[in-house]
Amino acid sequence: MSPADFDAWSQAELQRVETALDHHVCGDAPAGLGLAMRYGVLDGGKRLRPLLVLATAAAVQGHEGAALRAACAVELIHAYSLIHDDLPCMDNDVLRRGKPTVHVQFGEAQAMLAGDAMQALAFDVLTPDEHEADAPPAALQARLCRLLARASGVQGMAGGQAIDLASVGRPLDEPALQDMHRRKTGALLQASVLMGAVCGTVSPQAWQALADYGSAIGLAFQVVDDILDVTQASDVLGKTAGKDADHNKPTYVSLLGLAGARDRAASLHAQAQAALQRSALNDTALLAQLADRVVDRTS
Amino acid sequence: MSPADFDAWSQAELQRVETALDHHVCGDAPAGLGLAMRYGVLDGGKRLRPLLVLATAAAVQGHEGAALRAACAVELIHAYSLIHDDLPCMDNDVLRRGKPTVHVQFGEAQAMLAGDAMQALAFDVLTPDEHEADAPPAALQARLCRLLARASGVQGMAGGQAIDLASVGRPLDEPALQDMHRRKTGALLQASVLMGAVCGTVSPQAWQALADYGSAIGLAFQVVDDILDVTQASDVLGKTAGKDADHNKPTYVSLLGLAGARDRAASLHAQAQAALQRSALNDTALLAQLADRVVDRTS
Repeated sequence: MSPADFDAWSQAELQRVETALDHHVCGDAPAGLGLAMRYGVLDGGKRLRPLLVLATAAAVQGHEGAALRAACAVELIHAYSLIHDDLPCMDNDVLRRGKPTVHVQFGEAQAMLAGDAMQALAFDVLTPDEHEADAPPAALQARLCRLLARASGVQGMAGGQAIDLASVGRPLDEPALQDMHRRKTGALLQASVLMGAVCGTVSPQAWQALADYGSAIGLAFQVVDDILDVTQASDVLGKTAGKDADHNKPTYVSLLGLAGARDRAASLHAQAQAALQRSALNDTALLAQLADRVVDRTS
Repeated sequence: MSPADFDAWSQAELQRVETALDHHVCGDAPAGLGLAMRYGVLDGGKRLRPLLVLATAAAVQGHEGAALRAACAVELIHAYSLIHDDLPCMDNDVLRRGKPTVHVQFGEAQAMLAGDAMQALAFDVLTPDEHEADAPPAALQARLCRLLARASGVQGMAGGQAIDLASVGRPLDEPALQDMHRRKTGALLQASVLMGAVCGTVSPQAWQALADYGSAIGLAFQVVDDILDVTQASDVLGKTAGKDADHNKPTYVSLLGLAGARDRAASLHAQAQAALQRSALNDTALLAQLADRVVDRTS
Protein backbone atom coordinates (compact mmCIF):
# COMPACT_ATOMS: atom_id res chain seq x y z
CA MET A 1 0.00 0.00 0.00
CA SER A 2 1.36 3.42 -0.95
CA PRO A 3 1.30 6.33 1.51
CA ALA A 4 -1.16 8.03 -0.86
CA ASP A 5 -3.53 5.04 -0.73
CA PHE A 6 -3.29 5.08 3.05
CA ASP A 7 -4.06 8.80 3.12
CA ALA A 8 -7.14 8.29 0.95
CA TRP A 9 -8.33 5.48 3.22
CA SER A 10 -7.72 7.42 6.41
CA GLN A 11 -9.38 10.59 5.12
CA ALA A 12 -12.51 8.68 4.19
CA GLU A 13 -12.55 6.82 7.52
CA LEU A 14 -11.95 9.96 9.57
CA GLN A 15 -14.90 11.57 7.83
CA ARG A 16 -17.08 8.61 8.83
CA VAL A 17 -15.82 8.85 12.43
CA GLU A 18 -16.43 12.60 12.54
CA THR A 19 -19.98 12.17 11.23
CA ALA A 20 -20.67 9.43 13.76
CA LEU A 21 -19.24 11.43 16.67
CA ASP A 22 -21.27 14.45 15.54
CA HIS A 23 -24.35 12.21 15.71
CA HIS A 24 -23.56 10.64 19.09
CA VAL A 25 -22.42 13.77 20.94
CA CYS A 26 -25.62 15.80 20.86
CA GLY A 27 -25.39 19.54 21.34
CA ASP A 28 -28.81 19.59 22.98
CA ALA A 29 -27.65 17.95 26.21
CA PRO A 30 -28.81 20.16 29.09
CA ALA A 31 -27.34 23.42 30.33
CA GLY A 32 -24.45 23.67 27.89
CA LEU A 33 -23.06 20.23 28.74
CA GLY A 34 -23.46 19.04 25.15
CA LEU A 35 -21.57 22.07 23.86
CA ALA A 36 -18.65 21.41 26.21
CA MET A 37 -18.58 17.76 25.14
CA ARG A 38 -18.64 18.65 21.45
CA TYR A 39 -15.89 21.21 21.97
CA GLY A 40 -13.78 18.57 23.66
CA VAL A 41 -14.13 15.83 21.07
CA LEU A 42 -15.11 17.17 17.63
CA ASP A 43 -12.83 18.72 15.02
CA GLY A 44 -9.55 17.91 16.60
CA GLY A 45 -6.86 15.40 17.26
CA LYS A 46 -5.10 12.85 15.14
CA ARG A 47 -7.79 10.22 15.73
CA LEU A 48 -5.09 7.56 15.98
CA ARG A 49 -7.22 5.32 18.17
CA PRO A 50 -10.24 5.23 15.83
CA LEU A 51 -7.91 4.54 12.90
CA LEU A 52 -6.36 1.63 14.81
CA VAL A 53 -9.82 0.18 15.48
CA LEU A 54 -10.90 0.54 11.87
CA ALA A 55 -7.62 -0.71 10.34
CA THR A 56 -7.69 -3.79 12.56
CA ALA A 57 -11.38 -4.41 11.84
CA ALA A 58 -10.55 -4.16 8.12
CA ALA A 59 -7.74 -6.71 8.54
CA VAL A 60 -10.14 -9.21 10.12
CA GLN A 61 -13.21 -8.38 7.96
CA GLY A 62 -14.98 -7.27 11.13
CA HIS A 63 -18.58 -6.10 11.71
CA GLU A 64 -18.59 -2.60 10.22
CA GLY A 65 -21.23 -1.05 12.46
CA ALA A 66 -19.50 -2.40 15.54
CA ALA A 67 -16.11 -1.14 14.40
CA LEU A 68 -17.41 2.38 13.80
CA ARG A 69 -19.06 2.42 17.23
CA ALA A 70 -15.86 1.10 18.82
CA ALA A 71 -13.86 3.81 17.02
CA CYS A 72 -16.15 6.50 18.46
CA ALA A 73 -16.16 4.98 21.94
CA VAL A 74 -12.40 4.79 22.22
CA GLU A 75 -12.03 8.38 21.01
CA LEU A 76 -14.61 9.51 23.58
CA ILE A 77 -12.56 7.88 26.33
CA HIS A 78 -9.37 9.47 25.01
CA ALA A 79 -11.00 12.90 24.71
CA TYR A 80 -12.48 12.72 28.22
CA SER A 81 -9.06 11.83 29.63
CA LEU A 82 -7.52 14.89 27.98
CA ILE A 83 -10.23 17.17 29.42
CA HIS A 84 -9.64 15.85 32.93
CA ASP A 85 -5.83 15.87 32.51
CA ASP A 86 -5.88 19.51 31.57
CA LEU A 87 -7.80 20.60 34.70
CA PRO A 88 -6.01 22.82 37.21
CA CYS A 89 -5.82 20.02 39.81
CA MET A 90 -4.00 17.83 37.26
CA ASP A 91 -1.69 19.31 34.58
CA ASN A 92 -3.33 22.77 34.62
CA ASP A 93 -2.95 23.20 30.89
CA VAL A 94 -4.59 25.96 28.87
CA LEU A 95 -3.85 24.85 25.29
CA ARG A 96 -4.96 21.65 23.56
CA ARG A 97 -5.28 20.86 19.87
CA GLY A 98 -4.43 24.50 19.23
CA LYS A 99 -7.44 25.79 21.19
CA PRO A 100 -8.10 26.86 24.79
CA THR A 101 -8.73 23.78 26.91
CA VAL A 102 -12.30 22.85 27.85
CA HIS A 103 -12.13 24.26 31.39
CA VAL A 104 -10.71 27.55 30.10
CA GLN A 105 -13.66 27.80 27.72
CA PHE A 106 -16.49 26.38 29.89
CA GLY A 107 -15.29 26.45 33.51
CA GLU A 108 -13.86 23.69 35.67
CA ALA A 109 -17.12 22.17 36.85
CA GLN A 110 -18.56 21.88 33.35
CA ALA A 111 -15.26 20.42 32.08
CA MET A 112 -15.26 17.75 34.75
CA LEU A 113 -18.91 16.89 34.02
CA ALA A 114 -18.27 16.83 30.26
CA GLY A 115 -15.50 14.28 30.82
CA ASP A 116 -17.69 12.21 33.12
CA ALA A 117 -20.54 12.25 30.60
CA MET A 118 -18.18 11.32 27.76
CA GLN A 119 -17.01 8.23 29.62
CA ALA A 120 -20.65 7.16 30.08
CA LEU A 121 -21.38 7.99 26.44
CA ALA A 122 -18.55 5.72 25.29
CA PHE A 123 -20.31 2.72 26.84
CA ASP A 124 -23.70 3.97 25.64
CA VAL A 125 -22.40 4.09 22.05
CA LEU A 126 -21.18 0.49 22.37
CA THR A 127 -24.57 -0.81 23.52
CA PRO A 128 -27.33 0.30 21.14
CA ASP A 129 -30.75 -1.31 21.28
CA GLU A 130 -30.48 -4.55 19.40
CA HIS A 131 -33.13 -3.47 16.91
CA GLU A 132 -31.03 -0.54 15.68
CA ALA A 133 -29.84 -0.98 12.11
CA ASP A 134 -26.08 -1.17 12.71
CA ALA A 135 -26.27 -2.67 16.22
CA PRO A 136 -23.50 -5.18 16.99
CA PRO A 137 -24.69 -8.57 18.27
CA ALA A 138 -25.08 -8.53 22.07
CA ALA A 139 -22.09 -10.80 22.69
CA LEU A 140 -19.88 -8.44 20.70
CA GLN A 141 -21.27 -5.44 22.60
CA ALA A 142 -20.28 -7.08 25.87
CA ARG A 143 -16.77 -7.91 24.63
CA LEU A 144 -16.22 -4.36 23.43
CA CYS A 145 -17.36 -2.94 26.78
CA ARG A 146 -15.05 -5.35 28.60
CA LEU A 147 -11.98 -4.34 26.58
CA LEU A 148 -12.75 -0.63 26.89
CA ALA A 149 -13.52 -0.72 30.62
CA ARG A 150 -10.32 -2.59 31.47
CA ALA A 151 -8.16 -0.28 29.38
CA SER A 152 -9.73 2.81 30.98
CA GLY A 153 -9.56 1.87 34.65
CA VAL A 154 -6.98 1.06 37.28
CA GLN A 155 -5.22 -1.57 35.14
CA GLY A 156 -4.99 0.97 32.33
CA MET A 157 -5.38 4.67 31.81
CA ALA A 158 -6.55 5.82 35.25
CA GLY A 159 -3.90 3.69 36.97
CA GLY A 160 -1.21 5.15 34.72
CA GLN A 161 -2.40 8.65 35.53
CA ALA A 162 -2.12 7.92 39.24
CA ILE A 163 1.48 6.75 38.78
CA ASP A 164 2.16 9.86 36.70
CA LEU A 165 0.77 12.10 39.46
CA ALA A 166 2.91 10.40 42.05
CA SER A 167 6.05 10.54 39.90
CA VAL A 168 6.41 14.30 39.52
CA GLY A 169 9.86 15.33 40.68
CA ARG A 170 10.77 11.73 41.51
CA PRO A 171 13.23 9.71 39.40
CA LEU A 172 11.68 6.60 37.81
CA ASP A 173 13.85 3.84 36.42
CA GLU A 174 13.02 2.49 32.99
CA PRO A 175 10.83 -0.43 34.11
CA ALA A 176 8.74 1.95 36.24
CA LEU A 177 8.48 4.49 33.43
CA GLN A 178 7.44 1.74 31.04
CA ASP A 179 4.82 0.41 33.46
CA MET A 180 3.37 3.91 33.77
CA HIS A 181 3.16 4.44 30.02
CA ARG A 182 1.85 0.95 29.27
CA ARG A 183 -1.08 1.83 31.49
CA LYS A 184 -1.48 5.53 30.83
CA THR A 185 -1.46 5.55 27.02
CA GLY A 186 -0.49 2.04 25.95
CA ALA A 187 -3.54 0.25 27.33
CA LEU A 188 -6.04 2.31 25.35
CA LEU A 189 -3.98 2.13 22.15
CA GLN A 190 -3.70 -1.64 22.52
CA ALA A 191 -7.42 -1.85 23.32
CA SER A 192 -8.14 0.05 20.09
CA VAL A 193 -6.42 -2.74 18.15
CA LEU A 194 -8.15 -5.49 20.12
CA MET A 195 -11.58 -3.83 19.84
CA GLY A 196 -11.07 -3.88 16.09
CA ALA A 197 -10.01 -7.53 16.30
CA VAL A 198 -13.10 -8.72 18.23
CA CYS A 199 -15.29 -7.21 15.51
CA GLY A 200 -14.17 -10.18 13.36
CA THR A 201 -12.99 -13.71 13.94
CA VAL A 202 -9.28 -14.27 14.58
CA SER A 203 -7.14 -17.22 15.57
CA PRO A 204 -5.50 -17.19 19.01
CA GLN A 205 -2.18 -16.71 17.18
CA ALA A 206 -3.43 -13.64 15.31
CA TRP A 207 -5.02 -12.27 18.51
CA GLN A 208 -1.70 -12.49 20.35
CA ALA A 209 0.19 -10.96 17.43
CA LEU A 210 -2.27 -8.04 17.31
CA ALA A 211 -1.93 -7.58 21.06
CA ASP A 212 1.87 -7.45 20.62
CA TYR A 213 1.50 -4.97 17.76
CA GLY A 214 -0.77 -2.78 19.92
CA SER A 215 1.62 -2.96 22.83
CA ALA A 216 4.63 -1.99 20.71
CA ILE A 217 3.01 0.96 19.00
CA GLY A 218 1.42 2.02 22.29
CA LEU A 219 4.85 2.41 23.82
CA ALA A 220 6.38 3.82 20.63
CA PHE A 221 3.70 6.50 20.65
CA GLN A 222 4.77 7.63 24.11
CA VAL A 223 8.49 7.57 23.32
CA VAL A 224 7.83 9.78 20.27
CA ASP A 225 5.63 12.05 22.42
CA ASP A 226 8.55 12.54 24.79
CA ILE A 227 10.87 13.30 21.85
CA LEU A 228 8.43 15.83 20.34
CA ASP A 229 7.94 17.51 23.71
CA VAL A 230 11.61 18.63 23.60
CA THR A 231 12.09 19.08 19.83
CA GLN A 232 8.90 20.82 18.69
CA ALA A 233 7.34 24.20 19.40
CA SER A 234 3.87 24.53 20.93
CA ASP A 235 2.36 25.86 17.69
CA VAL A 236 3.37 22.69 15.83
CA LEU A 237 2.16 20.38 18.61
CA GLY A 238 -1.09 22.27 19.24
CA LYS A 239 -0.38 21.87 22.94
CA THR A 240 2.13 23.30 25.38
CA ALA A 241 5.64 22.06 24.51
CA GLY A 242 8.40 21.47 27.04
CA LYS A 243 5.96 20.88 29.86
CA ASP A 244 7.44 17.55 30.94
CA ALA A 245 10.74 19.25 31.78
CA ASP A 246 8.89 22.18 33.36
CA HIS A 247 6.97 19.76 35.58
CA ASN A 248 10.16 17.83 36.28
CA LYS A 249 8.53 14.65 34.96
CA PRO A 250 10.57 11.61 34.04
CA THR A 251 10.52 10.91 30.27
CA TYR A 252 12.23 8.59 27.81
CA VAL A 253 14.40 11.54 26.76
CA SER A 254 15.45 12.33 30.32
CA LEU A 255 16.18 8.64 30.87
CA LEU A 256 17.79 7.59 27.58
CA GLY A 257 18.83 10.90 26.00
CA LEU A 258 17.44 12.10 22.67
CA ALA A 259 19.44 9.64 20.54
CA GLY A 260 18.60 6.77 22.89
CA ALA A 261 14.91 7.63 22.76
CA ARG A 262 15.02 7.68 18.94
CA ASP A 263 16.69 4.24 18.92
CA ARG A 264 13.98 2.95 21.25
CA ALA A 265 11.22 4.27 18.99
CA ALA A 266 12.85 2.56 15.99
CA SER A 267 13.15 -0.71 17.88
CA LEU A 268 9.48 -0.63 18.95
CA HIS A 269 8.50 0.15 15.36
CA ALA A 270 10.38 -2.94 14.22
CA GLN A 271 8.63 -5.03 16.91
CA ALA A 272 5.25 -3.79 15.71
CA GLN A 273 6.02 -4.73 12.09
CA ALA A 274 7.30 -8.15 13.16
CA ALA A 275 4.10 -8.76 15.10
CA LEU A 276 2.04 -8.03 11.98
CA GLN A 277 4.07 -10.66 10.11
CA ARG A 278 3.40 -13.16 12.89
CA SER A 279 -0.34 -12.48 12.77
CA ALA A 280 -0.50 -14.31 9.43
CA LEU A 281 -3.46 -12.10 8.52
CA ASN A 282 -3.87 -11.45 4.81
CA ASP A 283 -3.98 -7.72 4.76
CA THR A 284 -2.18 -5.75 7.44
CA ALA A 285 -1.02 -2.95 5.14
CA LEU A 286 -3.13 -0.33 6.91
CA LEU A 287 -1.75 -1.36 10.30
CA ALA A 288 1.79 -1.29 8.92
CA GLN A 289 1.24 2.24 7.64
CA LEU A 290 -0.21 3.30 10.99
CA ALA A 291 2.91 2.04 12.75
CA ASP A 292 5.00 4.15 10.37
CA ARG A 293 2.89 7.21 11.11
CA VAL A 294 3.12 6.76 14.87
CA VAL A 295 6.92 6.85 14.69
CA ASP A 296 7.41 9.39 11.88
CA ARG A 297 4.90 12.00 13.09
CA THR A 298 5.98 15.58 13.77
CA SER A 299 3.08 16.55 16.03
CA MET B 1 -43.39 -9.03 55.04
CA SER B 2 -42.64 -7.58 58.46
CA PRO B 3 -40.12 -4.76 58.89
CA ALA B 4 -37.99 -7.24 60.86
CA ASP B 5 -37.99 -9.71 57.97
CA PHE B 6 -37.00 -6.91 55.63
CA ASP B 7 -34.18 -5.88 57.96
CA ALA B 8 -32.87 -9.43 58.07
CA TRP B 9 -32.98 -9.67 54.28
CA SER B 10 -31.29 -6.30 53.76
CA GLN B 11 -28.54 -6.97 56.31
CA ALA B 12 -27.66 -10.25 54.61
CA GLU B 13 -27.74 -8.67 51.16
CA LEU B 14 -25.68 -5.66 52.22
CA GLN B 15 -23.05 -8.03 53.56
CA ARG B 16 -22.91 -9.76 50.17
CA VAL B 17 -22.61 -6.39 48.42
CA GLU B 18 -19.89 -5.24 50.79
CA THR B 19 -17.90 -8.44 50.26
CA ALA B 20 -18.27 -8.14 46.49
CA LEU B 21 -17.24 -4.47 46.46
CA ASP B 22 -14.28 -5.32 48.67
CA HIS B 23 -13.28 -7.91 46.06
CA HIS B 24 -13.80 -5.68 43.01
CA VAL B 25 -12.21 -2.49 44.36
CA CYS B 26 -8.64 -3.67 44.85
CA GLY B 27 -6.43 -1.75 47.21
CA ASP B 28 -3.36 -2.62 45.17
CA ALA B 29 -4.22 -0.30 42.28
CA PRO B 30 -1.16 1.86 41.64
CA ALA B 31 0.07 4.87 43.57
CA GLY B 32 -2.64 5.01 46.19
CA LEU B 33 -5.48 5.10 43.66
CA GLY B 34 -6.99 1.89 45.02
CA LEU B 35 -6.96 3.28 48.55
CA ALA B 36 -8.81 6.42 47.47
CA MET B 37 -11.38 4.31 45.61
CA ARG B 38 -11.92 2.03 48.59
CA TYR B 39 -12.26 5.03 50.91
CA GLY B 40 -14.90 6.46 48.57
CA VAL B 41 -17.07 3.36 48.23
CA LEU B 42 -16.57 0.91 51.11
CA ASP B 43 -18.12 1.04 54.57
CA GLY B 44 -20.59 3.79 53.99
CA GLY B 45 -23.87 4.91 52.60
CA LYS B 46 -27.34 3.49 52.71
CA ARG B 47 -26.75 1.26 49.65
CA LEU B 48 -30.26 2.03 48.47
CA ARG B 49 -29.36 1.41 44.83
CA PRO B 50 -27.87 -2.06 45.39
CA LEU B 51 -30.92 -2.99 47.49
CA LEU B 52 -33.23 -1.84 44.68
CA VAL B 53 -31.32 -4.01 42.19
CA LEU B 54 -31.41 -7.04 44.45
CA ALA B 55 -35.04 -6.63 45.56
CA THR B 56 -36.17 -6.31 41.94
CA ALA B 57 -34.05 -9.26 40.86
CA ALA B 58 -35.63 -11.29 43.68
CA ALA B 59 -39.12 -10.28 42.49
CA VAL B 60 -38.35 -11.58 38.97
CA GLN B 61 -36.25 -14.60 40.04
CA GLY B 62 -33.31 -13.04 38.20
CA HIS B 63 -29.77 -14.33 37.55
CA GLU B 64 -28.10 -14.02 40.97
CA GLY B 65 -24.55 -13.44 39.81
CA ALA B 66 -25.71 -10.77 37.40
CA ALA B 67 -27.81 -9.04 40.05
CA LEU B 68 -24.90 -8.88 42.51
CA ARG B 69 -22.61 -7.45 39.83
CA ALA B 70 -25.30 -4.93 38.85
CA ALA B 71 -25.69 -3.94 42.51
CA CYS B 72 -21.95 -3.28 42.78
CA ALA B 73 -21.81 -1.43 39.45
CA VAL B 74 -24.63 0.96 40.28
CA GLU B 75 -23.11 1.71 43.69
CA LEU B 76 -19.73 2.39 42.04
CA ILE B 77 -21.40 4.93 39.74
CA HIS B 78 -23.21 6.53 42.68
CA ALA B 79 -20.03 6.68 44.79
CA TYR B 80 -17.98 8.17 41.95
CA SER B 81 -20.62 10.86 41.44
CA LEU B 82 -20.43 11.81 45.12
CA ILE B 83 -16.63 12.09 44.98
CA HIS B 84 -16.79 14.38 41.94
CA ASP B 85 -19.72 16.40 43.38
CA ASP B 86 -17.80 17.11 46.54
CA LEU B 87 -14.78 18.56 44.70
CA PRO B 88 -14.02 22.26 45.17
CA CYS B 89 -15.03 23.10 41.59
CA MET B 90 -18.48 21.57 42.27
CA ASP B 91 -20.10 21.66 45.73
CA ASN B 92 -16.81 22.04 47.62
CA ASP B 93 -17.95 19.81 50.45
CA VAL B 94 -15.69 18.48 53.18
CA LEU B 95 -18.00 15.99 54.94
CA ARG B 96 -19.63 12.87 53.47
CA ARG B 97 -20.99 9.78 55.21
CA GLY B 98 -19.63 11.27 58.43
CA LYS B 99 -16.03 11.32 57.16
CA PRO B 100 -13.80 13.87 55.41
CA THR B 101 -14.54 13.79 51.66
CA VAL B 102 -12.16 11.95 49.33
CA HIS B 103 -10.37 15.07 48.08
CA VAL B 104 -9.85 16.28 51.65
CA GLN B 105 -8.24 12.94 52.46
CA PHE B 106 -6.33 12.22 49.23
CA GLY B 107 -6.09 15.50 47.30
CA GLU B 108 -8.15 16.79 44.40
CA ALA B 109 -6.28 15.08 41.59
CA GLN B 110 -6.45 11.65 43.21
CA ALA B 111 -10.14 12.18 44.01
CA MET B 112 -10.92 13.01 40.40
CA LEU B 113 -8.97 9.98 39.18
CA ALA B 114 -10.60 7.72 41.74
CA GLY B 115 -14.02 8.79 40.44
CA ASP B 116 -12.95 8.28 36.83
CA ALA B 117 -11.58 4.82 37.62
CA MET B 118 -14.73 3.88 39.53
CA GLN B 119 -16.89 4.69 36.52
CA ALA B 120 -14.70 2.42 34.36
CA LEU B 121 -14.76 -0.24 37.07
CA ALA B 122 -18.56 -0.23 37.07
CA PHE B 123 -18.58 -1.35 33.44
CA ASP B 124 -15.69 -3.74 34.07
CA VAL B 125 -17.67 -5.44 36.87
CA LEU B 126 -20.64 -5.88 34.50
CA THR B 127 -18.55 -7.60 31.82
CA PRO B 128 -16.58 -10.49 33.30
CA ASP B 129 -14.96 -13.06 31.04
CA GLU B 130 -17.68 -15.48 30.06
CA HIS B 131 -15.81 -18.42 31.64
CA GLU B 132 -15.99 -16.88 35.14
CA ALA B 133 -18.25 -18.83 37.47
CA ASP B 134 -20.94 -16.20 38.09
CA ALA B 135 -20.64 -14.45 34.72
CA PRO B 136 -23.95 -13.23 33.30
CA PRO B 137 -24.72 -14.34 29.73
CA ALA B 138 -23.26 -11.91 27.18
CA ALA B 139 -26.65 -10.57 26.10
CA LEU B 140 -27.47 -9.71 29.71
CA GLN B 141 -24.06 -8.06 30.18
CA ALA B 142 -24.79 -5.82 27.20
CA ARG B 143 -28.26 -4.88 28.48
CA LEU B 144 -26.90 -4.03 31.94
CA CYS B 145 -24.18 -1.83 30.41
CA ARG B 146 -26.79 -0.08 28.25
CA LEU B 147 -29.08 0.73 31.20
CA LEU B 148 -26.19 1.92 33.36
CA ALA B 149 -24.54 4.03 30.65
CA ARG B 150 -27.77 5.83 29.76
CA ALA B 151 -28.63 6.55 33.39
CA SER B 152 -25.12 7.92 34.04
CA GLY B 153 -24.71 10.23 31.06
CA VAL B 154 -26.31 13.32 29.57
CA GLN B 155 -29.83 11.86 29.65
CA GLY B 156 -29.33 11.00 33.31
CA MET B 157 -26.97 11.84 36.12
CA ALA B 158 -24.39 13.99 34.36
CA GLY B 159 -27.10 15.95 32.57
CA GLY B 160 -28.90 16.57 35.84
CA GLN B 161 -25.68 17.77 37.41
CA ALA B 162 -25.20 20.24 34.59
CA ILE B 163 -28.71 21.64 35.16
CA ASP B 164 -27.96 21.78 38.89
CA LEU B 165 -24.76 23.74 38.26
CA ALA B 166 -26.58 26.19 36.03
CA SER B 167 -29.48 26.62 38.48
CA VAL B 168 -27.60 28.04 41.46
CA GLY B 169 -29.21 31.32 42.46
CA ARG B 170 -31.77 31.07 39.66
CA PRO B 171 -35.45 30.30 40.34
CA LEU B 172 -36.63 27.02 38.75
CA ASP B 173 -40.32 26.27 38.35
CA GLU B 174 -41.53 22.84 39.38
CA PRO B 175 -41.33 21.17 35.95
CA ALA B 176 -37.72 22.36 35.61
CA LEU B 177 -36.86 21.21 39.15
CA GLN B 178 -38.45 17.85 38.43
CA ASP B 179 -36.58 17.46 35.15
CA MET B 180 -33.31 18.18 36.98
CA HIS B 181 -33.99 15.60 39.70
CA ARG B 182 -35.34 12.96 37.34
CA ARG B 183 -31.96 13.09 35.64
CA LYS B 184 -29.63 13.82 38.54
CA THR B 185 -30.80 11.17 41.02
CA GLY B 186 -33.96 9.64 39.54
CA ALA B 187 -32.35 8.10 36.48
CA LEU B 188 -29.86 6.00 38.45
CA LEU B 189 -32.47 4.91 41.02
CA GLN B 190 -34.82 3.89 38.22
CA ALA B 191 -31.95 2.15 36.43
CA SER B 192 -31.26 0.19 39.63
CA VAL B 193 -34.78 -1.23 39.44
CA LEU B 194 -34.55 -1.94 35.72
CA MET B 195 -31.12 -3.56 36.02
CA GLY B 196 -32.65 -5.90 38.57
CA ALA B 197 -35.56 -6.53 36.20
CA VAL B 198 -33.40 -7.48 33.18
CA CYS B 199 -31.71 -10.12 35.31
CA GLY B 200 -34.94 -12.10 34.97
CA THR B 201 -37.78 -12.35 32.48
CA VAL B 202 -40.66 -9.90 32.81
CA SER B 203 -43.73 -9.08 30.74
CA PRO B 204 -43.89 -5.66 29.04
CA GLN B 205 -46.60 -4.76 31.57
CA ALA B 206 -44.40 -5.63 34.55
CA TRP B 207 -41.46 -3.82 32.97
CA GLN B 208 -43.48 -0.62 32.61
CA ALA B 209 -44.83 -0.93 36.15
CA LEU B 210 -41.31 -1.38 37.54
CA ALA B 211 -40.15 1.64 35.53
CA ASP B 212 -43.02 3.65 37.05
CA TYR B 213 -42.11 2.39 40.53
CA GLY B 214 -38.47 3.39 39.98
CA SER B 215 -39.46 6.79 38.71
CA ALA B 216 -41.78 7.49 41.66
CA ILE B 217 -39.31 6.45 44.35
CA GLY B 218 -36.49 8.23 42.49
CA LEU B 219 -38.33 11.51 42.80
CA ALA B 220 -39.61 10.73 46.31
CA PHE B 221 -36.00 10.17 47.38
CA GLN B 222 -35.06 13.68 46.26
CA VAL B 223 -38.11 15.33 47.84
CA VAL B 224 -37.20 13.65 51.15
CA ASP B 225 -33.56 14.72 50.69
CA ASP B 226 -34.72 18.31 50.39
CA ILE B 227 -36.86 17.94 53.51
CA LEU B 228 -34.02 16.39 55.53
CA ASP B 229 -31.63 19.12 54.38
CA VAL B 230 -33.70 21.67 56.35
CA THR B 231 -34.95 19.50 59.23
CA GLN B 232 -31.88 17.46 60.22
CA ALA B 233 -28.48 18.32 61.65
CA SER B 234 -25.25 17.44 59.85
CA ASP B 235 -24.31 14.79 62.41
CA VAL B 236 -27.53 12.87 61.68
CA LEU B 237 -27.18 13.19 57.91
CA GLY B 238 -23.45 12.41 57.85
CA LYS B 239 -23.07 15.28 55.38
CA THR B 240 -23.33 19.03 55.56
CA ALA B 241 -26.95 20.04 56.32
CA GLY B 242 -28.58 23.24 55.10
CA LYS B 243 -26.27 23.54 52.14
CA ASP B 244 -29.02 23.90 49.55
CA ALA B 245 -30.20 27.11 51.19
CA ASP B 246 -26.59 28.23 51.68
CA HIS B 247 -25.93 27.71 47.97
CA ASN B 248 -29.24 29.37 47.14
CA LYS B 249 -30.33 26.24 45.27
CA PRO B 250 -33.97 25.63 44.36
CA THR B 251 -35.49 22.69 46.30
CA TYR B 252 -38.91 21.12 46.80
CA VAL B 253 -39.06 22.81 50.18
CA SER B 254 -38.29 26.25 48.78
CA LEU B 255 -40.87 25.66 46.03
CA LEU B 256 -43.70 23.90 47.93
CA GLY B 257 -42.96 24.71 51.57
CA LEU B 258 -42.22 21.99 54.14
CA ALA B 259 -45.82 20.76 54.40
CA GLY B 260 -46.21 20.78 50.61
CA ALA B 261 -43.00 18.80 50.18
CA ARG B 262 -44.21 16.24 52.73
CA ASP B 263 -47.50 15.88 50.82
CA ARG B 264 -45.55 15.39 47.61
CA ALA B 265 -43.41 12.66 49.16
CA ALA B 266 -46.56 10.86 50.38
CA SER B 267 -48.16 11.11 46.96
CA LEU B 268 -45.07 9.70 45.24
CA HIS B 269 -44.95 6.89 47.80
CA ALA B 270 -48.56 6.01 46.92
CA GLN B 271 -47.69 6.06 43.21
CA ALA B 272 -44.81 3.65 43.83
CA GLN B 273 -47.04 1.22 45.73
CA ALA B 274 -49.73 1.41 43.03
CA ALA B 275 -47.14 0.61 40.39
CA LEU B 276 -46.12 -2.52 42.30
CA GLN B 277 -49.76 -3.63 42.27
CA ARG B 278 -49.92 -3.03 38.50
CA SER B 279 -46.78 -5.10 37.95
CA ALA B 280 -48.77 -8.25 38.76
CA LEU B 281 -45.52 -9.81 40.00
CA ASN B 282 -45.96 -12.41 42.73
CA ASP B 283 -43.66 -11.06 45.35
CA THR B 284 -43.00 -7.36 45.54
CA ALA B 285 -42.88 -7.18 49.34
CA LEU B 286 -39.19 -6.19 49.39
CA LEU B 287 -39.81 -3.40 46.90
CA ALA B 288 -42.82 -2.21 48.92
CA GLN B 289 -40.67 -2.07 52.06
CA LEU B 290 -37.95 -0.19 50.19
CA ALA B 291 -40.48 2.44 49.10
CA ASP B 292 -41.49 2.84 52.77
CA ARG B 293 -37.87 3.27 53.80
CA VAL B 294 -37.17 5.87 51.12
CA VAL B 295 -39.98 8.06 52.44
CA ASP B 296 -39.67 7.37 56.17
CA ARG B 297 -35.91 7.71 56.47
CA THR B 298 -34.34 10.22 58.84
CA SER B 299 -30.92 10.45 57.20
